[in-house]
Amino acid sequence: MGNDTVIENIASFESHPSKYKHWKLAVEGQVATLSMNVKEDGGLRADDYVLKLNSYDLGVDIELADAIQRLRFEHPEVKVLVVTSLKDRIFCAGANIFMLGSSSHPFKVNFCKYTNETRIGLEDASAHSGLKAIAALNGTASGGGYELALACDEILLIDDGNSAVSLPEVPLLGVLPGTGGLTRVVDKRKVRRDQADFFSTTAEGIRGKRAVEWRLVDQVVPKSKFQQVVAERAKALAAQSDRPADGKGMELKSVEPKVTATGVEYRYVSLKLNTSLRVAELTMRGPTEPPGADGAALQAAGCDSWGVRAFRELDDALLRLRINYLEIGTVVLKTQGDGAKVLAWDTFLAGNTQHWLVREVLHLQKRVLKRLDVTAKTLYAFVEPGSCFSGTMAELALAADRSYMLDDADKPTTIELGPLNAGALPMPNGLSRLQTRMLATPEKTKEILAHQGAFSAPEALAAGLITFAPDSLDWDDEIRVALEERASLSPDALTGMEANLRFAGPETLETKIFGRLTAWQNWIFQRPNAVGERGALSLYGQAGVRPTFDMRRT
Amino acid sequence: MGNDTVIENIASFESHPSKYKHWKLAVEGQVATLSMNVKEDGGLRADDYVLKLNSYDLGVDIELADAIQRLRFEHPEVKVLVVTSLKDRIFCAGANIFMLGSSSHPFKVNFCKYTNETRIGLEDASAHSGLKAIAALNGTASGGGYELALACDEILLIDDGNSAVSLPEVPLLGVLPGTGGLTRVVDKRKVRRDQADFFSTTAEGIRGKRAVEWRLVDQVVPKSKFQQVVAERAKALAAQSDRPADGKGMELKSVEPKVTATGVEYRYVSLKLNTSLRVAELTMRGPTEPPGADGAALQAAGCDSWGVRAFRELDDALLRLRINYLEIGTVVLKTQGDGAKVLAWDTFLAGNTQHWLVREVLHLQKRVLKRLDVTAKTLYAFVEPGSCFSGTMAELALAADRSYMLDDADKPTTIELGPLNAGALPMPNGLSRLQTRMLATPEKTKEILAHQGAFSAPEALAAGLITFAPDSLDWDDEIRVALEERASLSPDALTGMEANLRFAGPETLETKIFGRLTAWQNWIFQRPNAVGERGALSLYGQAGVRPTFDMRRT
Repeated sequence: MGNDTVIENIASFESHPSKYKHWKLAVEGQVATLSMNVKEDGGLRADDYVLKLNSYDLGVDIELADAIQRLRFEHPEVKVLVVTSLKDRIFCAGANIFMLGSSSHPFKVNFCKYTNETRIGLEDASAHSGLKAIAALNGTASGGGYELALACDEILLIDDGNSAVSLPEVPLLGVLPGTGGLTRVVDKRKVRRDQADFFSTTAEGIRGKRAVEWRLVDQVVPKSKFQQVVAERAKALAAQSDRPADGKGMELKSVEPKVTATGVEYRYVSLKLNTSLRVAELTMRGPTEPPGADGAALQAAGCDSWGVRAFRELDDALLRLRINYLEIGTVVLKTQGDGAKVLAWDTFLAGNTQHWLVREVLHLQKRVLKRLDVTAKTLYAFVEPGSCFSGTMAELALAADRSYMLDDADKPTTIELGPLNAGALPMPNGLSRLQTRMLATPEKTKEILAHQGAFSAPEALAAGLITFAPDSLDWDDEIRVALEERASLSPDALTGMEANLRFAGPETLETKIFGRLTAWQNWIFQRPNAVGERGALSLYGQAGVRPTFDMRRT
Repeated sequence: MGNDTVIENIASFESHPSKYKHWKLAVEGQVATLSMNVKEDGGLRADDYVLKLNSYDLGVDIELADAIQRLRFEHPEVKVLVVTSLKDRIFCAGANIFMLGSSSHPFKVNFCKYTNETRIGLEDASAHSGLKAIAALNGTASGGGYELALACDEILLIDDGNSAVSLPEVPLLGVLPGTGGLTRVVDKRKVRRDQADFFSTTAEGIRGKRAVEWRLVDQVVPKSKFQQVVAERAKALAAQSDRPADGKGMELKSVEPKVTATGVEYRYVSLKLNTSLRVAELTMRGPTEPPGADGAALQAAGCDSWGVRAFRELDDALLRLRINYLEIGTVVLKTQGDGAKVLAWDTFLAGNTQHWLVREVLHLQKRVLKRLDVTAKTLYAFVEPGSCFSGTMAELALAADRSYMLDDADKPTTIELGPLNAGALPMPNGLSRLQTRMLATPEKTKEILAHQGAFSAPEALAAGLITFAPDSLDWDDEIRVALEERASLSPDALTGMEANLRFAGPETLETKIFGRLTAWQNWIFQRPNAVGERGALSLYGQAGVRPTFDMRRT
């Protein structure tokens, strides 16, 4: 089942181009080039594995996610991102197998989830920010390397008689491609299912004309013309982008997490751990200042503005919860502050979406909330006096698996919706959290959004916005029981259950990847055929040793 | 990981009301009542478990599937099926936990798949045959018992102050409800996700008014009025049905499988095992006689008619492959016969859909082909001289993960499509197999269907109907390599890969259940938290013993 004793805590999920070990980011006018050049001895657990052939670990992907985020915020003038490699004849060999083989099961799963989010983030940048991406495969792209290419808008493969694209996971490792590859091959690129079958079982991959005919890449380009064609395609894609030619970026600074023995503190977010109940209390504080008057003012205020900083802090806290605090089973979502000020921010953002930076802030908030949706922890929202579950912050309550709202006339609590709750912050299933909640009664969504002012606890209960509204007499007991009971249940069963209950309604590429492909991968990652002593993943790289399989098909 | 030494082969997948141990089927005019009365010592492995409280094993479900199928074919006058129990205060306690706990992992997975197919079959009967179903819960329905109710059109729960509906799998067993429960709760009945969360973690379940308010049941009915209300609802549902009042049924006789050491023989189907390559050759023979002139002639010809018998044989062969021949990894699909005669059958069926029996035959063929789609074996189709991949039988080639068609002018091979390939036999994703294949080029679907006459091998290759068309020189080598390579791969990785590649495009309740929920369940069924020595499933029923969980959330 992998190595359970290895220490896999991640000290920081932040990065900066000045610190990149594995990537080179070059911005030239409207085109940015992000070149992979993985440092072999630069792994997060450098004693355990060597990052050969541009293979990657989580550290490499944290830099990639940072680069994409920075291009969105700091370089509005960039319309096309070219992803390529600085190594000869190899674009990227995918996730490092020795890293995977020596990781615990939870880390493998969390690693795949993070890298999936990064790739979906790349697609989000193309769909919503006009930042188009070209995979310029100057050499072989295998496994996760090809999956990274699949997340780009176009794939150009060098035609050097050797370089191929491949998904060798099934034939070589006995696991699935872990970053959405199978789904993107048949659902995004619409490769014919039988050709996808042949491709996904052929370790050496496919190159040349067949790669184009089978829709695996968009073009194969002779080596002599490769740079020229990449530049031409970049120009053509740039013409489709609506990013501003002269926008001034917003620098993203560190959110400065302060890690203590009992949690993590940020300016707007506090994470407090209760290890005996395996509960983390995640409190998000609302804004104290109003937003600026327009996009330019937002830009001038910089990344410490509440709408940016609070959500980046939440993002960092969620990653820490997932990877560094594995034993935490339940996250209690709380808020503190003035709901009217949250709604003022929402109104500002909703009214200024024509400004590129406002658009970016909204998409940041959306992505962070999606990260919450796919976090494998129970989410309870507690709506207590002094909280500000309004607008964007009401999404925390709507994202929760359950919500408890104190019903006490002497200590009033409220939930209030605003312009951003109507669809600006969709879940991975493409619906708003309110729509997902109201699947049985879609007409109620409109009614609730039309409600004037805040919902009191009885009103919120009647409208279906919360699960329970205990009074002061019952509150302590009820939440204690809810936390204790949850802590007693199998964490695996809860993860599976939550993954199925959270995303009713339509399916999207994202829900397919997180709900379906991930579940199969989790299964396979547990099976002795992959991770047993004689499993394919365990034995990878040992010359002449073949895995032994239990051949019963299930 | 469950008991690997237990013998789980199933001698027969057929049954008959005269042989039912666990159900009583009573037909009165337009209403059939199917009453569960599970015989405690009547389990398939009666030494290992006792079927208390109407809990079930595969044997119970084989009878259920038989009863539904018979009502469709033998009782066209029946418009409503009432599913209830003959036991006091208990409707059904779900799958027997001791059976699950003592089963191997493959058997658990196959058991869940079969019971899922039975429940989807019940919904299919309602949607497509006008056979509506009422779950008349005369007592508590828990776990699989409630999931059976969820597959009915209406759920009536007795209000006796005690009887409840529940999904206690997560809190009691550390696994998921295994028969589509979570999906049907939020997607079919559209229970609000937070209420579904509370419900699915509350072992004692929910009863009375709350069960109705939360949409878990349609009505709660006092004991004194229960029979009366059930009868009223049956009458109301019958009015929605278009089944014929005076149809004469077609008796379903045994398909008489002859099991030998090397395979299974039927009249129209042969299954030949090659255990060294772990390959089964499944040959389906086309009709030798033309179909009758109309529905009445089909009825007169009886269940030995090709269009009925051949598909029932295929169904039986697939179940045997799944459960009795676990080590078989690849199924080679072959056909033999006269394609023109297959197309004559198709044309007959397509032209007589207003006849209830024709409709049933078509839906039978559809359901069997869906059973093929979700079979966890690699499917290769070999199109060789003498084959008849025409019409319905071309669906076998289209269902395959890959297809090989001999291209030799001296020994011609053909594929020909007909009226039933245009959507009458949809896959679980709701698309035809041809549409699924042509996702990238939907316009080609029309072109291919409009093609006059048969496709030769080069034409089929050009049209995208097959994967490869080797000539006589290459054929033997190419298929040998294809079979040998497949046999060398991890069966788990292949199962996960195939489940992801087969169902591109839209998602439905069925694909969610088979692709998503099943994958999570497979994962959880492997985890020590469920099946380890101290796992919840292993320890179930041992008084005072609590499971020990690895609490890391993944």
